[in-house]
Amino acid sequence: MGAGSEPRSVQSRLECKQATDATQPNISAMLLLRRCHRLTRFGPLNTQRHQAAPAVASCAVRLRSGSSGEDQRSYQHAHGPSWRQALAGVLAGTGAVLAYGLHHHKAEQVETIEKASALPIFTQEEVTSHRSLEDGVWVTYKGAVYNITEFVAMHPGGDKIMLAAGGDLEPFWALYAVHKQEHVLEILAEYKIGELRAEDLKKQQSVKSSDPYSSDPERHPVLRINNLKPFNAEPPPEILTDSYITPSAIFFKRNHLPVPQVDPDSYRLHVEGLPGGALTLSLEELKTRFPKHTITATLQCAGNRRSEMNKVKQVKGLNWGIAAISNATWSGARLRDVLLAAGYGPDVAKRACHVQFEGLDKDVTGTTYGASIPLNKAVSEEGDVLLAYEMNGEDLPADHGYPVRVVVPGTVGARNVKWLGKIIVSAEESSSHWQQNDYKGFSPATDWDTVDFKSAPAIQELPIQSAITVPADGTAVDRSNEEVTVKGYAWSGGGREVVRVDVSLDGGKTWQVAQLRSSDKDQAPEVSPPPGRAWAWKLWEITVPLPAEAQELEIVCKAVDNSYNMQPDTVAPIWNLRGVLSNAWHRVKVKIREDESEE
Amino acid sequence: MGAGSEPRSVQSRLECKQATDATQPNISAMLLLRRCHRLTRFGPLNTQRHQAAPAVASCAVRLRSGSSGEDQRSYQHAHGPSWRQALAGVLAGTGAVLAYGLHHHKAEQVETIEKASALPIFTQEEVTSHRSLEDGVWVTYKGAVYNITEFVAMHPGGDKIMLAAGGDLEPFWALYAVHKQEHVLEILAEYKIGELRAEDLKKQQSVKSSDPYSSDPERHPVLRINNLKPFNAEPPPEILTDSYITPSAIFFKRNHLPVPQVDPDSYRLHVEGLPGGALTLSLEELKTRFPKHTITATLQCAGNRRSEMNKVKQVKGLNWGIAAISNATWSGARLRDVLLAAGYGPDVAKRACHVQFEGLDKDVTGTTYGASIPLNKAVSEEGDVLLAYEMNGEDLPADHGYPVRVVVPGTVGARNVKWLGKIIVSAEESSSHWQQNDYKGFSPATDWDTVDFKSAPAIQELPIQSAITVPADGTAVDRSNEEVTVKGYAWSGGGREVVRVDVSLDGGKTWQVAQLRSSDKDQAPEVSPPPGRAWAWKLWEITVPLPAEAQELEIVCKAVDNSYNMQPDTVAPIWNLRGVLSNAWHRVKVKIREDESEE
Repeated sequence: MGAGSEPRSVQSRLECKQATDATQPNISAMLLLRRCHRLTRFGPLNTQRHQAAPAVASCAVRLRSGSSGEDQRSYQHAHGPSWRQALAGVLAGTGAVLAYGLHHHKAEQVETIEKASALPIFTQEEVTSHRSLEDGVWVTYKGAVYNITEFVAMHPGGDKIMLAAGGDLEPFWALYAVHKQEHVLEILAEYKIGELRAEDLKKQQSVKSSDPYSSDPERHPVLRINNLKPFNAEPPPEILTDSYITPSAIFFKRNHLPVPQVDPDSYRLHVEGLPGGALTLSLEELKTRFPKHTITATLQCAGNRRSEMNKVKQVKGLNWGIAAISNATWSGARLRDVLLAAGYGPDVAKRACHVQFEGLDKDVTGTTYGASIPLNKAVSEEGDVLLAYEMNGEDLPADHGYPVRVVVPGTVGARNVKWLGKIIVSAEESSSHWQQNDYKGFSPATDWDTVDFKSAPAIQELPIQSAITVPADGTAVDRSNEEVTVKGYAWSGGGREVVRVDVSLDGGKTWQVAQLRSSDKDQAPEVSPPPGRAWAWKLWEITVPLPAEAQELEIVCKAVDNSYNMQPDTVAPIWNLRGVLSNAWHRVKVKIREDESEE
Repeated sequence: MGAGSEPRSVQSRLECKQATDATQPNISAMLLLRRCHRLTRFGPLNTQRHQAAPAVASCAVRLRSGSSGEDQRSYQHAHGPSWRQALAGVLAGTGAVLAYGLHHHKAEQVETIEKASALPIFTQEEVTSHRSLEDGVWVTYKGAVYNITEFVAMHPGGDKIMLAAGGDLEPFWALYAVHKQEHVLEILAEYKIGELRAEDLKKQQSVKSSDPYSSDPERHPVLRINNLKPFNAEPPPEILTDSYITPSAIFFKRNHLPVPQVDPDSYRLHVEGLPGGALTLSLEELKTRFPKHTITATLQCAGNRRSEMNKVKQVKGLNWGIAAISNATWSGARLRDVLLAAGYGPDVAKRACHVQFEGLDKDVTGTTYGASIPLNKAVSEEGDVLLAYEMNGEDLPADHGYPVRVVVPGTVGARNVKWLGKIIVSAEESSSHWQQNDYKGFSPATDWDTVDFKSAPAIQELPIQSAITVPADGTAVDRSNEEVTVKGYAWSGGGREVVRVDVSLDGGKTWQVAQLRSSDKDQAPEVSPPPGRAWAWKLWEITVPLPAEAQELEIVCKAVDNSYNMQPDTVAPIWNLRGVLSNAWHRVKVKIREDESEE
C-alpha cells in the first residue's frame, strides 16, 4: 500500500430521518438496514458483524480491479412488496442478516449524527490505497471522497461493492440503474470524508496522447485488462452472470488494432464481388433501405479460458480468463438483404463460397483487420447475420465497431468484424492473417516447428462451452451455510441450444442438473428459438447441500447442447499451440470453512 | 467344440499347373504363393510358418462369427502390374512373407498332387466344429466342404478369412467381388475334402416359420446379432472399415418391429397436413414425378457403443459394439420437393414445426413405428432429406425399408424411418414412443425412478464420434513388426465435417494425427462437401512405431469436427439410463508380444 494507507478517523454523520414501520415498503429498506447496523456497532452483536469480515476480505484480495458493481435485482427486490424476504436473502451472504434479524424491532430508535463542516482534500493516490476492509474502503463520486468501510457488509449487492474500492463509483452506478435513486445518494452522503484533489478529478477524464491508441475510447474500470494496446479486457466473472444481457460497458473487449474514429456522416460501406458492380451505402442508407432486424446473440473469443491451457503448457496469446464471452441484443440490416440488393442470386452461389469482411481498423502498414464466413451462412434466411448498428438498443459503442459491425451469431468472435468497411463476395476465404494463420485448432502434438496452418479449417462455429462464475476458485464457503449456490453460463456455437448443465461438487464423480434460464430472474423467459437459431447463452444456477464430510469442494460444470455435444473432461488433450477452443469441464476449488476453526 | 472336432486327415491334392515366371503378372500370384507355401512345409522354414499361427489363432478365438470376408484391394493389387510389392505388403501381416521372400526362386518346381476320387459326406455340425487352426478350418461352398487350414496364413485378406471358419463362403464372396475369378475357385478346389449332407445344404436356405418375423429377410452370416426378433445386428468392426461405402448386406440392421412385406405395385405414400388435402403417391410416381437425388450419408444408431456404457453401469438397450454405424449412397426424391408439390409454402411454416413419419412396420396392436424431424431440416434446400428408394445403387433391401425410407442425413438413425407409409406436417412432434419416451439423453444422475422424458429434447443431430476398428481390443502385435497400424472411422452429425482424428498409444498422454480419407484407398477422394453438408464419415489410418519400453498399448482415438467439437474423455460422466450417445474416446488395449518369449 502507498502513502496514506492508515484509515482516517473522519466520520461524517447525518441526522437520521424518522424511522418508519416495516409495513410501509415505500420507505427505504437501506436506511432501515443502516440503522440496524449502527445499533449493532456498540452492542453485543459486534462480534457477529466482524465475523463477516474475513469472507469479504478474502474477496477483496481476490478482486484486483479498482472499483465496483452492485446487484440491480437486490435493490429492486428491496423496494418491492416482498422486500422483507428479499432483503433477508440478499443479506444472507454478507453476515449482516443476524444483526438484522435480532434488531429490526429496535429500528425506530433515532441516532443523532453531527455533520462535519470542513472536509479535507485527498489525492487519488490516497483514495486508491484504501481498498480493503483492513485499510478502509474509500471511493469517489462526483469529486467527493467517501469511506464506505462500514457499509460494505450491508450492501445489498454483496461483496461486489469491493470492485469499486479505491476508485470511482460512477461507472458502476452507470451499470446498475438501481443506484439512480435519491435514497442511495442519502446513504452515500453519510460516509463522506472529504473532497478529491481538483487535478485528480480532471484525470478521471482519460488522458489523451499521440500514440495510435490515443483515440481509443474510455473503458469501464471494472474490466480486467489482458492487454492495453490493443485493448483486450473481460469483466469479472461474478458480474458477468448478473445480467442475462451484458451491459455494453462490461461486454468483453477484443481489439486487434487501435479503435478507428469513424465519422458517421462520411461513413460508407462498400459491397463488392456481385453482378452490377460495387454497391456503396451510407450509414443512413443502411438504416433506411433495409428492414431493421434484432437478435440476441452471445459472442465469444476463440481464446476464452486460454489461461487454463497455459497451466498445462504455455501457449501464444492473451491470457483470457473465463469471461471473454458476453451476450447482447444487436440490431441492424440483415447481411442477406444487403447482398440481395447488391445483386446476389443463385448464379453467384455457383462461383462464390465465402463472404469476406474488411474492418476500418488498420495497422501501421495500413493493413486492415479482415475475416470471412461461408457464403451459405451469410445468405441463409436462418443465418441471421447482421450488419449491426445498434448494441443493446443504442448506437454501437466505439469498442464494439461504431458505426457498423458484422454480427455472425453462433460464430467465433473473430469473424464478427467491427468498424466494417467492405464486404466482398468471393470464391476465396479472406487472405488475412487472422483467417489464414490464426484462429485455427490443432492437435496437442502440433508445435510451432511443425504447424501447417493450411491443414486446419478456420474456426467458424464454436463448440459447446460452459463455466462457473460463482463461487470463484480459491474462495471459501462457511459450513454454517449448509449449502452452496453455484452459478455460471453455457453456450454453444452454430445456433445449437444448450439443453442441460450438469454440476458436480466432487470433481466429476457425481452430478446434479442445474436450472437454466434465458432471461433475467425477474423477467419472463425469452421465447424458445427455432431449431438451429439459439444464438444466446443460458445462465444457470444450482443450490446444493454441502457434503457432510468434505473439507474442500472441486466444483465442476459441463454443458450439453441439442446436438448432444458434450465438453471434454480435461484440458491437456485439447491443448493447442494457440490456446483456442478451451472448453474442457470448468473446475473451481472451494474450501469449506468450519465455523469454530476460524478466528 | 461339438462332435467331429478332431481334424480329419483327408487331404485333397491337385496337380499343379506349370509354374510361370514372376515377370508374367497375368499368372495368378496366389498359385505362386501356394506353391511357395507347399515348398516350405517340408523345408527348413517350417518353423517360421508356424510362428505365424498364434496371431491367427488368437484372432480365431476373438471372432465368434461363423464365416469370412476377404480384402478386395489385396486381390486387385496382387494381380496388378506391381503385384510383387503389393503381395509382400499383404503378406507382411500373416508371417508368410518370409517363406515367400526366400523361396520364390524355387517356384518353378512342380509338385504332384493326387486327386481323391471318392469324398466323404459331412454334416453341417461337423463343418461348424472346425473353426480354428487347432481344430482345422473348414468351410462350405455350393455344397462342397473344404479344409482350408493350410491356406489361412496365405490369404491375401489376412485373418478375415477366419470369419468364414465353420460356415459357408458364398455370402462373404458376395461381399467381395474379387473372389469371382477363375483362379480363386482353382485354389479352393485344392482344399476340397468332401460334400455337405444334402439336408444341411437345404438348411442353408432360411427356414420360414409362422411367427411375426417369419417374413424377415435372410441376413449375412457375418453380422453379429444383438437381437434376433426384431433383428438387430452389426458387422465385425474390422470388416466395417474395409469399405468406404458399406455393402448393404453388412450395413448395420436396426429394426424395431418385424420387417413388413410391401408390394411395390400397391404401395402408396400418403402426405398429410398441407393445404389442399392429402397427397397420395405410388412408388412409380415418386420415382418419376420428382428429380432423383443421390447423397452419401452415414447412419448411426443412437445406441452405437452402448456396450461401453454397460461396463460402467447396466443400461437398458441392446448391447451394441462399435459398429452400429455404416455409410451408403442413397437415391430418391427430395422430401422438400414432395412437400412443395403437396402444397408446402411460407404459410405452413408459420403454424407447423415438425414433419412426422410413420412406418409400415407394426406391433401386434397395429401401432406403427414413428418419428419426426424439425420442419426446417425437412424443407431446407441444404437439408438433403430424401425419400430414398435406392441404397448403394439398387432397390432398398427389405431390412433397410423397401420400397421407400426416409434418409435424414446428419440425424440419428431412429428418425430415418423405414418402410415409409405416411408423412404428416404438424405443429407437434411425433407422439410415438420412440420420439417421446426413448432416444433422449439424460444426466448420469437420472435413473428410471426420476427420469422425466419431457425434460430432454428428442435426439436429432448426433455428436462427434470415432472408434478404432483395427486392432481389436485384447489382441496382440509382434514386437518384430516394429510398428502398429491403427484404423477406424469418424463422423459427426448435423453435416459437420470431421477435420482431424488424434490417436494415442499411451492412453491419451501423447497424440499423433491420423490420415483421413473420404473414399476407398484406390479411388479418388470424393469432392469436399459444402459447409454443413458433410453427411458421410471419414475413414482414418495411422502407422506408428511401437514404443521401445511398452509391453501393452492403450490405443485411444478422438475426433474433431469443423465446429471443433471434441469427444469427451471418459464414459462415466456421459453415462445415461438408455445408454445412448456413447461417444467418449474409444480405447483398445493391445499387448506387445516379444519375439523370444512366445512358444
